[in-house]
Order: sequence, then structure tokens, then C-alpha cells
Amino acid sequence: MTTTVLENLQFRLASRPVGPAKASDWQQMTQVVPAINDGDIIIKTLYLSLDPAMRGWMNDGKSYIRPVAIGEVMRAAGIGLVVASKSPKFAVGDHVSGALGVQQYWSGAADDKAGAFIKVDAGLAPLPTYLNVLGMPGLTAYFGLLEVGQPKAGETVVVSGAAGAVGMTVGQVAKQLGCRVVGIAGGKDKCDFVVDQLGFDACIDYKAGSVKDGLKQHCPQGVDVYFDNVGGDILDAVLTRINKKARIVICGAISQYNNTTPVKGPANYLSLLVNRARMEGIVVFDYADRFHLGIKAMGQWLQEGKMKNKVDIVQGLENFPQSLAMLFEGKNFGKLVLQVADE
Amino acid sequence: MTTTVLENLQFRLASRPVGPAKASDWQQMTQVVPAINDGDIIIKTLYLSLDPAMRGWMNDGKSYIRPVAIGEVMRAAGIGLVVASKSPKFAVGDHVSGALGVQQYWSGAADDKAGAFIKVDAGLAPLPTYLNVLGMPGLTAYFGLLEVGQPKAGETVVVSGAAGAVGMTVGQVAKQLGCRVVGIAGGKDKCDFVVDQLGFDACIDYKAGSVKDGLKQHCPQGVDVYFDNVGGDILDAVLTRINKKARIVICGAISQYNNTTPVKGPANYLSLLVNRARMEGIVVFDYADRFHLGIKAMGQWLQEGKMKNKVDIVQGLENFPQSLAMLFEGKNFGKLVLQVADE
Repeated sequence: MTTTVLENLQFRLASRPVGPAKASDWQQMTQVVPAINDGDIIIKTLYLSLDPAMRGWMNDGKSYIRPVAIGEVMRAAGIGLVVASKSPKFAVGDHVSGALGVQQYWSGAADDKAGAFIKVDAGLAPLPTYLNVLGMPGLTAYFGLLEVGQPKAGETVVVSGAAGAVGMTVGQVAKQLGCRVVGIAGGKDKCDFVVDQLGFDACIDYKAGSVKDGLKQHCPQGVDVYFDNVGGDILDAVLTRINKKARIVICGAISQYNNTTPVKGPANYLSLLVNRARMEGIVVFDYADRFHLGIKAMGQWLQEGKMKNKVDIVQGLENFPQSLAMLFEGKNFGKLVLQVADE
Repeated sequence: MTTTVLENLQFRLASRPVGPAKASDWQQMTQVVPAINDGDIIIKTLYLSLDPAMRGWMNDGKSYIRPVAIGEVMRAAGIGLVVASKSPKFAVGDHVSGALGVQQYWSGAADDKAGAFIKVDAGLAPLPTYLNVLGMPGLTAYFGLLEVGQPKAGETVVVSGAAGAVGMTVGQVAKQLGCRVVGIAGGKDKCDFVVDQLGFDACIDYKAGSVKDGLKQHCPQGVDVYFDNVGGDILDAVLTRINKKARIVICGAISQYNNTTPVKGPANYLSLLVNRARMEGIVVFDYADRFHLGIKAMGQWLQEGKMKNKVDIVQGLENFPQSLAMLFEGKNFGKLVLQVADE
């Protein structure tokens, strides 16, 4: 290995945002990647996953994962290429998935717990797929739907954020199970996509009309499972249409993440009482010991053409702040990925 | 049987209340009890159960039970004495429990489905007990806690409305299971009662200070099961203290029943996500085929002195409207029962 000086552009958290993240909440800096010790590797970031959950990680306070500290490199999942290795675990040229952070290079111990790096097979699927259907969003959808939503064939499954990374997987997995699947998304293009390309039975455009009316029309048998990625008024609308013993999977609440006022709680939550229904949260890390089963099942559906994968790729690490903002403005169409480098 | 003319004072629903029920929402009228046919019985009302759920039955709209119609006798559970019978099912002198309605006499078919009359044993427990621990409130507590809350020995169970009919049973059953039990109630007398008389480990007086601070102090290991009878700010406070995989039983929301503004949804519901926790509704009628098991278990605890029963008895059917209002003002202390007649 020749010694090359690697310049590493990083985005660090400069301050905790109030409302949407602003440019001044980020600190851009460039560091030189240090020489590595035994057991260490250097990973070149190829793709970074941009996820709604990242907004939550920027807040202080108890959550399912510790907040990103002020001055710390912003946490992000990514796919990278091992470019230096003093570890038997990875070889130069391996493709890996893990918590690379918003930077050009990650370096440290190959068995770093926070990094949680695993090899991915670039031959099985295009690399960004490992940030989507075969990555955290896909696994969140898979285990959230199966373990918490517990849909049965013939039941009606509704999913919000239907054209997003999690939503598109929820709907497609539910179709594999024989459910009626109704998406909720913003805009005709997204709705057409999930129906025409992904095979959802219907999609309600929340920008074009009343979600409640859409649910009446497209869920004539009521709603048995609702997979919620958005919270707010849409959650409240679905609560009015649930069936007895319905299951609501609380996966996220993107409508509320940038609030400067308190979160809007679901005013119709007493529908849970009337319908003996359940609302339950899901965090994907709880299923880590079974990730390989989800990847295997969905990998096969992808290869057989029974499932599709849509990625919205933005170029250039320097565009990280405005790319992240796209999520909260509903501007991405499919799983949002930032391409940081070519191989 | 000698023929006696029985005058029957009734309270009928005159109009659907906006906010708390007013005097003008009731119509008092006196009818003569008609002669009965084969298969019929006449029941003299002795005790009526006054329950928060009654406010919900006065509203129009889909719920777990049909609304009381305008002009109909107000629905109420009660204990009565069979005073005339042309049915082999009941004999004169039997004590029965069922939906007698807010009136002095019920008459009709002994096997009336809405009435759902069953015999009760006046020798086993005082009659009002069958409207409390051995009645719907007690069974709601028993099945809601065991089936939905699923507490394990050593876990912390919190219950609101702790001195009320459901709450006092929840706490006492949870103590039998070996849980740490913390009540939430309004006022020192109620709090002292549930701790000193019922054996709760602690009780938070929501009128005297911050519920959140009380939870911090009295639930050092967090909250595993929360049995909610009140909703509103107290539900939100508990949501900030729940443990991973906590279960929240939604039994009622008395703080919200008289609202003229929309229900206050739980702003902290995303704690369900962070903690992979669950919020689930309970309706007691779902467990009807196992009521006898609950009555047997709790009847034995009562007889052994392991459980106590507190009833707050108000006299006189004519006092029904103001007695019902006591529930929503937190003025009752123990299960509120209206004594309509002596035997």
C-alpha cells in the first residue's frame, strides 16, 4: 500500500436546530485521515442514506439512540469501499454497509460497534439498494409490518409516505402477503408510481383532497393495519376508519419532526378504545439478529421481479444540507441517497 | 300474586348534551308498569351504577355500543329484585344484575338481550359490590390489566383514577400479582385511602403538584404498565416515563368526555416509538365468556380480605342528574352508586 494523504470533508453538528435544520447548524471541515493501527480500516464513502430519523438524532434528550453531540460528525448510514485495511475482517476492495457518518472517509477499528460494518454483495444488487429495500428502511418496513402490524391475507393495509423508502417496501411486502394495499402520498406522480409501478391497489393523494374521503372510497372494508410514517392529521384521519382489533405501527412522524410547537397528538386516539385496537412503536435495531432473514426474503423478491426499488440519487457531499431538507419538503421521490464518490 | 299498580319514575334522554349534561338534557316521567306476559319479569331497581362511560352513550355516532336514543330511558347497569315473574328463569325474590336503566322498575322478557340479566348471590357479598369489584368496573380492571396490560411480578404498574371503581381494582389486582403499584388520584383523602387502605405503594395527588415529578419519585424503575382512565395531561406525563416495551391500557378518558373542543391527543405518543411500547384499548364486553372467572378470583380475594371494595352511595332516583355529575367533578370517593329503593 502506498501512503496517500486522504483529505476528508466532514459535516459536523454545530448547533441543535430549532425547527428545520439551517446552514448554520452545520460545520464543514476538512481533516486528513490519520494513519491506521492494527485492526483498523479506512472506508471511502460512496453513498449516504438520507433519512427522516436524522432530524431526531440532532435533538438532545432520551431516545432510542444517543443524540449526535455538538461538534461530532453527523451520523449517517452509508455504503463504502474499503481502501485500507489492517484487519483480517475486511480486505481492500470490499464493499461495506454501516454508520459511515457524513464524511468522505471513515477510519477506525474494523469491529467498531457504532459503525456496525458488514460486507455487502455488489453483484447481487446495485449498491444503493443496500440503503433502501435491502437496508435499514427496507428492514424497518419488513419487521415493522410483519412483527407489529401482523397482517393477514385479505386484510386492508394502509401506509403513509407510500413512495418513500419505508412506505414503498411496506406496501410491496403486504402485497406479497395477499393484502389489499392503499398508499397515502403527496402528488399525482408519487401516487401513480406506487399504483402503476409497485402494484398498490390504490393511493390517496393527500395534497389533492381529503384523506378521510379517500379512505372511505378505497378501504370499503375499513383499515386493519396502518403503517404510519407521518403522524399529524393523516394519523388522525386513519384512526376514524380502523377496524376492530386494528394494528397501527408507529414508525415515524415526519410531519412533526421540524415542529417548534409541541407535537400534535392524535386527537382520535380513543378510537383505539372503541375498536380494541393497538398502536405500537417499532425500532429496526431490535431485529438485528434476524436482518439476514429479511434481506434474504426481499433479495429474492427483487431478483424475481416481484418487488421494485426506487432510489432518488443526489450528487455531492457538499450538497448534504439541502439534500436532507428535501425529505421534509416531500421533494424526494423514492429512497433519497447522496452519492459522495465514484468507486 | 296480587295486582298492584306500580308507578315507575324514569329518566329519559331529552337532548344530546354539549359539554357536561344539563338538567334540561333529561326528561323525568312517571309511567305505570304494564301487566306482563308469559316469559316476562318485573324487576324493582335497588341500586344503579353511575359510570363515566354513560356520558359517551349520550353522544351520537359510532362507538362500541349504540347511543341512547332521544326519548329513550337512559341506559344504566343496576342491581334489582325480581318482584313479578312469568318466566322459569327467575323467581320472585331473586336478586339480578343487568341493564335496568335509570328507572324504578324494569319490565319485559326475562331473556332480554340488552338487559342481559343474571342472578347474583346477596349472601356472598353486599349487593353494591356487584356494581363495583364484582361488576363491570371490576371486570374491566381485571381483564384490561391481565389481558392487555400483562403485568409481571416486580414490574411497576401505574393507574389513574386510582380511587375510582376501575382504578382501585386495577391496583389491588396488580398488588396480588406482585407488582409495584402507583396510583394517581385527586386529593389527599383519595391518595391516603389507596395507600393506607388498599395497599398501593404510593399515590400521586395530581391536584397537589406535578404528576411528572411524582412519577420520577415513585417510579424509580420507570413505568411498565399504565392503566389509563383519564387521558389528557396525565396520559402525556406518563408517556414521558414509560419503559421499553411498556403497555398502556386505554380504558377511558374522563378528562375529555365533557369537552366541547376536540379531544387532546397525547402529544408524547412518539414515546411509543422510542420505547417500542404499545397503547391498546379495552372494552369489557369482549371478555363476557370469562366474566365468571374474574368474579370467582376477585370474590375469593374479597372473602380472604386481600381486596377491598369502596362504594360511595347516593340516595334517591330523583338525584340522578346531580349524582352523575359528581363523577366528572371528581366528587365521588369510591365506586359511585345510586340507591333507588330498599328491598
